[in-house]
Amino acid sequence: MARFYGIGIGPGDSELVTVKASRILGELDILYTPEAKKGAKSLALEIAGPYLSEELMIKQRHFPMVRDKSHKEGQWLDIAEEIVADVQAGKNVGFITLGDPMVFSTYSYLLDIIGHRIETKTIPGITSYNSIAAEVGLPLVMDEESFAVVPATADVQHLEAVLRTHETVVIMKVANHLAEVLPLLKQFDLLDKTVLVSRSSTDQQEIRHGVADLSPEEKLSYFSTMLVKKH
Amino acid sequence: MARFYGIGIGPGDSELVTVKASRILGELDILYTPEAKKGAKSLALEIAGPYLSEELMIKQRHFPMVRDKSHKEGQWLDIAEEIVADVQAGKNVGFITLGDPMVFSTYSYLLDIIGHRIETKTIPGITSYNSIAAEVGLPLVMDEESFAVVPATADVQHLEAVLRTHETVVIMKVANHLAEVLPLLKQFDLLDKTVLVSRSSTDQQEIRHGVADLSPEEKLSYFSTMLVKKH
Repeated sequence: MARFYGIGIGPGDSELVTVKASRILGELDILYTPEAKKGAKSLALEIAGPYLSEELMIKQRHFPMVRDKSHKEGQWLDIAEEIVADVQAGKNVGFITLGDPMVFSTYSYLLDIIGHRIETKTIPGITSYNSIAAEVGLPLVMDEESFAVVPATADVQHLEAVLRTHETVVIMKVANHLAEVLPLLKQFDLLDKTVLVSRSSTDQQEIRHGVADLSPEEKLSYFSTMLVKKH
Repeated sequence: MARFYGIGIGPGDSELVTVKASRILGELDILYTPEAKKGAKSLALEIAGPYLSEELMIKQRHFPMVRDKSHKEGQWLDIAEEIVADVQAGKNVGFITLGDPMVFSTYSYLLDIIGHRIETKTIPGITSYNSIAAEVGLPLVMDEESFAVVPATADVQHLEAVLRTHETVVIMKVANHLAEVLPLLKQFDLLDKTVLVSRSSTDQQEIRHGVADLSPEEKLSYFSTMLVKKH
C-alpha cells in the first residue's frame, strides 16, 4: 500500500542512516525536501543521496521556519494537500529530516495535518547529540542520572530549571543565541564543562571542549549543539 | 589499525541498525556480548545476527548489573584486560549495546577503564524512546519545548522535579518500579497521558495508551519504557 514516510537520516554522515531508512529511501517514488537557502546545497539531500533510486522524483518545497505556529501551519496546507494527492495516486512518498523526525522536526506538523488521512510511517534517526556523545566519549546518562534536551530559544527561567535539574543537558539551536546561553553557563559554573560541536559526524565537524573563551558574537553553524555535563 | 568498537544496535529491529554499525559488525574479529540469563536468547545477538561474519569469534562474558559502581567496575577489570590484549594483538573487537552506547549502557564503564589505553570508536544507535515516539506518532520535542530522560530508579524528589519541568518525559527501566512511578503520574494527573511500550520495534512490541488501569504489580518486560506527554 502507498504510504507517506517520515524518515530520520541522522546527523550528517550518510553511514549513520539506518538500514531501514536506506531501504525505504531506495523504494520511494517521490521525495519532498525543504528548499535549501539560495546557493546552498541541501545537507539532507547530500546525506540521503547514496540511497536514492534514479527514478526518484524530488520535489523541493518551501517549508517556512517561523516562530508563529498558526502562520507556519497555514503555509504548509498546500504542501500537505500535494502529499495526500500523491499518496492517494499510489505513490510512496518520503519526507527526510536531519536527525530524528520526532526531535525538533517540521515533520511533526505535517504528520499532525495529514496523519489521519493517509497511511503514514515514521522511521527514527540518530540525533546530533547521540552522535556527539559517541564522538567525544561522554555518556548522556548512567545509573540513576537523567538528561534533558532543551532549545536555546526557551526562556531563561526554563533553561535555568533544566540546568539545575539534570546531570547532563543538551542545548540545541545555540547559533545566534550565545548571548543568552553563555551567561547562564557561567552562572552555573559550567563553561568548562560544556562541549560545543558543529556539523557533527560530517567532514566539517568542529569540536570545542570548554566555552569560557567563546565570544557571544561568534558566528556558529546552524547545526551547533552544546553538551553540558556536570561531572 | 585495530580498534575497540562500542556499537549501538538500536531498540530491537535489525533494520534499525545504522549502515555504519552493520558494516563494522561484519568487519569484527571478536565480539564481546553480555551473557544472557540462563536459557534466554541474547536479544543483542539476535539483532546483530544478520550482519556478523562467519569467521567472527563471539566471547560471551558475565557483566554484572549491580547498583554499587565500585563493585561493578572491579568485576569488569578482567574483561577489560582481555579486550585490551585482543586489540593489542591486532584484532578488531566489538561490544554491542541495545539502543545507544551513551544512554544507560555498561559500555560507558568499559570506555572509562580502557579508552586511554587502546584506540576506541563509539557508533551511536537508535534509542528505544526515539523508536517509540516514531511508532506512536508523538513528537518528543517541538519549538521551545524540552524533554528529559530519567530512570524509574531515580529518587522520587528527582522524578517529581523532572515531571514538573518538561513537556515530555521518558521514563526508562519501569519494570519492577511501577509501585513508585504510577502514584507520581497520578499526582501530576498524567496517567492518561502516558504511553507504555514494551519491546519496541520487535515482533513482541506491546503498546498501551494510558496507564490508569495498570496494576503496580503488573509484570512488565525488562525492555519497557514510558513516554509521558503533557499536551
